[in-house]
Amino acid sequence: MLKGYTLPLSPEGEANIVPTPPWHYSGDVLAIEFWTDPQAAAACLPPGLKADQCADGHALGLFVDWQFTAQDDEFLDPAKYQYREFYVLVDAVWRDTPVAWCPYIYVDNDAAMGRGWIQGYPKKLASVFQTRSFAAASPAAAPIAAGTTFAGSMSVHGRRAAAGRVTLRKQVPELPAALLRPTVNRRYFPRLTAGQHDQPSVNELTMAVNDDFKFANCWVGEGKIALPKTAGEELDALAPMRVGSGYRFSMSCTIKDLKILDGLGS
Amino acid sequence: MLKGYTLPLSPEGEANIVPTPPWHYSGDVLAIEFWTDPQAAAACLPPGLKADQCADGHALGLFVDWQFTAQDDEFLDPAKYQYREFYVLVDAVWRDTPVAWCPYIYVDNDAAMGRGWIQGYPKKLASVFQTRSFAAASPAAAPIAAGTTFAGSMSVHGRRAAAGRVTLRKQVPELPAALLRPTVNRRYFPRLTAGQHDQPSVNELTMAVNDDFKFANCWVGEGKIALPKTAGEELDALAPMRVGSGYRFSMSCTIKDLKILDGLGS
Amino acid sequence: MLKGYTLPLSPEGEANIVPTPPWHYSGDVLAIEFWTDPQAAAACLPPGLKADQCADGHALGLFVDWQFTAQDDEFLDPAKYQYREFYVLVDAVWRDTPVAWCPYIYVDNDAAMGRGWIQGYPKKLASVFQTRSFAAASPAAAPIAAGTTFAGSMSVHGRRAAAGRVTLRKQVPELPAALLRPTVNRRYFPRLTAGQHDQPSVNELTMAVNDDFKFANCWVGEGKIALPKTAGEELDALAPMRVGSGYRFSMSCTIKDLKILDGLGS
Amino acid sequence: MLKGYTLPLSPEGEANIVPTPPWHYSGDVLAIEFWTDPQAAAACLPPGLKADQCADGHALGLFVDWQFTAQDDEFLDPAKYQYREFYVLVDAVWRDTPVAWCPYIYVDNDAAMGRGWIQGYPKKLASVFQTRSFAAASPAAAPIAAGTTFAGSMSVHGRRAAAGRVTLRKQVPELPAALLRPTVNRRYFPRLTAGQHDQPSVNELTMAVNDDFKFANCWVGEGKIALPKTAGEELDALAPMRVGSGYRFSMSCTIKDLKILDGLGS
Repeated sequence: MLKGYTLPLSPEGEANIVPTPPWHYSGDVLAIEFWTDPQAAAACLPPGLKADQCADGHALGLFVDWQFTAQDDEFLDPAKYQYREFYVLVDAVWRDTPVAWCPYIYVDNDAAMGRGWIQGYPKKLASVFQTRSFAAASPAAAPIAAGTTFAGSMSVHGRRAAAGRVTLRKQVPELPAALLRPTVNRRYFPRLTAGQHDQPSVNELTMAVNDDFKFANCWVGEGKIALPKTAGEELDALAPMRVGSGYRFSMSCTIKDLKILDGLGS
Repeated sequence: MLKGYTLPLSPEGEANIVPTPPWHYSGDVLAIEFWTDPQAAAACLPPGLKADQCADGHALGLFVDWQFTAQDDEFLDPAKYQYREFYVLVDAVWRDTPVAWCPYIYVDNDAAMGRGWIQGYPKKLASVFQTRSFAAASPAAAPIAAGTTFAGSMSVHGRRAAAGRVTLRKQVPELPAALLRPTVNRRYFPRLTAGQHDQPSVNELTMAVNDDFKFANCWVGEGKIALPKTAGEELDALAPMRVGSGYRFSMSCTIKDLKILDGLGS
Repeated sequence: MLKGYTLPLSPEGEANIVPTPPWHYSGDVLAIEFWTDPQAAAACLPPGLKADQCADGHALGLFVDWQFTAQDDEFLDPAKYQYREFYVLVDAVWRDTPVAWCPYIYVDNDAAMGRGWIQGYPKKLASVFQTRSFAAASPAAAPIAAGTTFAGSMSVHGRRAAAGRVTLRKQVPELPAALLRPTVNRRYFPRLTAGQHDQPSVNELTMAVNDDFKFANCWVGEGKIALPKTAGEELDALAPMRVGSGYRFSMSCTIKDLKILDGLGS
Repeated sequence: MLKGYTLPLSPEGEANIVPTPPWHYSGDVLAIEFWTDPQAAAACLPPGLKADQCADGHALGLFVDWQFTAQDDEFLDPAKYQYREFYVLVDAVWRDTPVAWCPYIYVDNDAAMGRGWIQGYPKKLASVFQTRSFAAASPAAAPIAAGTTFAGSMSVHGRRAAAGRVTLRKQVPELPAALLRPTVNRRYFPRLTAGQHDQPSVNELTMAVNDDFKFANCWVGEGKIALPKTAGEELDALAPMRVGSGYRFSMSCTIKDLKILDGLGS
């Protein structure tokens, strides 16, 4: 019998690109809140979600440096299980629940891309970086302290598609609710059979289930973000009309479940 | 309405990681035939396929340099649409049809990985290279001629997992049937909902449908291949007990269909 | 005794980043000729070279896919010895000799970067790609034939810094002289000793010595090139005011010598 | 006048691969001490250094995650100025001074490689990773605490060439002297002129000058290190016969000077 959670299933179950959940994550986040054209925000929503009329195009751009582990000390294989991510969240409403919709997300790791597809995060590969903070004092250290600026960047196949900055001003005990809406995604797996290219095998609206959310070292300050026009991407349609606060924080969670909200048809 | 064939669906339909078929490919191939332990060959087969009793563990290792295009001149964006691939094919039987089963495959491109999942090729990312042939004569040119050796290598997250060589001996008008069996794959897309991790949303045995197969510059010669033990991979279970001929050829095809052979249960 | 041509010298002489010459190269080239602002062309010249008054800012942008070998069949380690390059050549005059000066050059390989520094090519790392031509007919094949377009791109640390295209029109027996001027470079190796940062250890004007230059499959057609503004680069100062012909050809040569033209002072 | 510290010199001085010193660094280090064959340790020394008779083959393997900045907030361009490094230091003696000699070093960044050559560190490109510590508690967080294991790995062009682990046991106020010997390097820049390939333009024994060395969060514990045989590398000649303690710490320094110890001849 072949074993494993994902392809490739194999005799020992060690070759699969994504090991069996639970999946554990710990990372550092730069989050920049901004307001895009409300029509553009509405235009990227899937069936089942409505525009958030109160949001006025409110969105977030997030850069994350992640470390991942499952049950086999994967964090001791950093070449394979560290990764970096950039994504956008757009305010939306599911039935009467305020949610965050993820239209675009980019990672630099294949296992993270595979997990994303399974969750409904539409991950593509990109080069993603953020300024790190180091403990030994130096002009290169970027201490977590008032006045330090952190920068993030994301490039798709050699084209710079997102850039952000956060300048820390003050530590805060917790993040504002605007950053903590439940995330809604779309699991979507197309058919290749002729005549059925638009009849996906899987097409479900889902809500992320994150256990054990923990936050540490939360700071707020000024944010900047740019989403320049890039061939093959549509991030620029969500370019900021106004930019709000920037945040830097550490975050961890565990994932082993997913809530299916609605089937969207095949 | 959101558009696109794959995630992310988007207002303009330009952001999806894999554009709508047909997909056109042209590439250069190093193929090395070998015989692995027949029990190991049988152990990697999915439900619905039987070991080929006549094959005695016959398998192929293939390195391919690919150029891809869909309908929008994607070949003019080589940073995004050229890619390199290594895969293994194992002889098997579906009902009474001799087929080739793809247990493991590696690419260096996210769009290729996405297409693979949709077809049932269990693609993971790797670094893949092969010696190229250049037209201007030089000790560096590797002409397509008797006596030239071509080498291929594949590394997964920094670990060399496959290496092959083909030394050309003579041009042949066409490839032997052993290289041309129809390829069988498994479309497999798991669920993340708690309690359903082993009940995939999609689990289908499929047969690849390749239109307009063309071959050019087919040569046969000696082959060598090594599949060393590599953490997180099970290629080494298929390591060669005996190595046969090596082939180098150019190949093109178009893909816009897939034949579903059997549902394998959810 | 430690052995090797370059660092790291080592007991067996196998660790050095660049093996001992002769070095053999064979590759495919996209070359686009253009005219930049003559003042910008003059501004990038080193001491010892004068602007070519007849050139009116004439320059070339070149994308090359290279395969390299020295004496140990390095072409059989394609992961290490294939590389891709983009560079600009600007018309200039040394004493009374028309020459081509290389102000900027980018490669995707460390051994190529090391060889470049030794020759005086000021190589930095970048991602470089060009459309390839494959033998098996397909919309993805890009045959070497009238009407086919080839594209090249170059990105530095995630920022697209050059893009070019050549559409083939007709095969030519040889390349025009404007593409074949001797290349002049500057070997430059700085000191780090305090107070001597502007007193380089090596500062020499050099002329490349390429043995056994061979050309094959030379085609001419229309060219396009863009050198967009990119943080940390000054290629854009040489942006085209007018673009001329585009060329595609294969080229090989052997390098084992260098002519020192002038010492430029330390 | 062209400006810059390194190639390419340019009209604005912004294109050079390495900006003008001072250079500031802050990073996280995994250091594993080991004893190799004393004859192998002696065999990798340059002229001017003697084997340390008391050292019995004592050496260090170091993985470092670095952030770099010069004078222009380079730390805000993390895609370009973060990098990772692995190197080996071997105990040696210069005249009567105990020193550490760096025979082999690998980085994943071109500017770091360029700085290394200027200092005499014989840098080549590689993929280097180490387990990171994150602030938000999780099985993926790797807290800096007794019992946590950190792993490092280094691969050269797809071949795993070094792997190490450190399991933290107790925090220490400072590092032992064995880790803090002055580092000796060899600046070496060869000639390409025919007949002079073994007569380098620069060939100097140097001692690193690191200002403002700062250490933080120093921990000691068990170490492990492997230096497997790898084509094109000679690290394996220094493979450990015995492994000692492992260390994890944060470190910063500033570099703007270099001490030339001896000319080694051209």
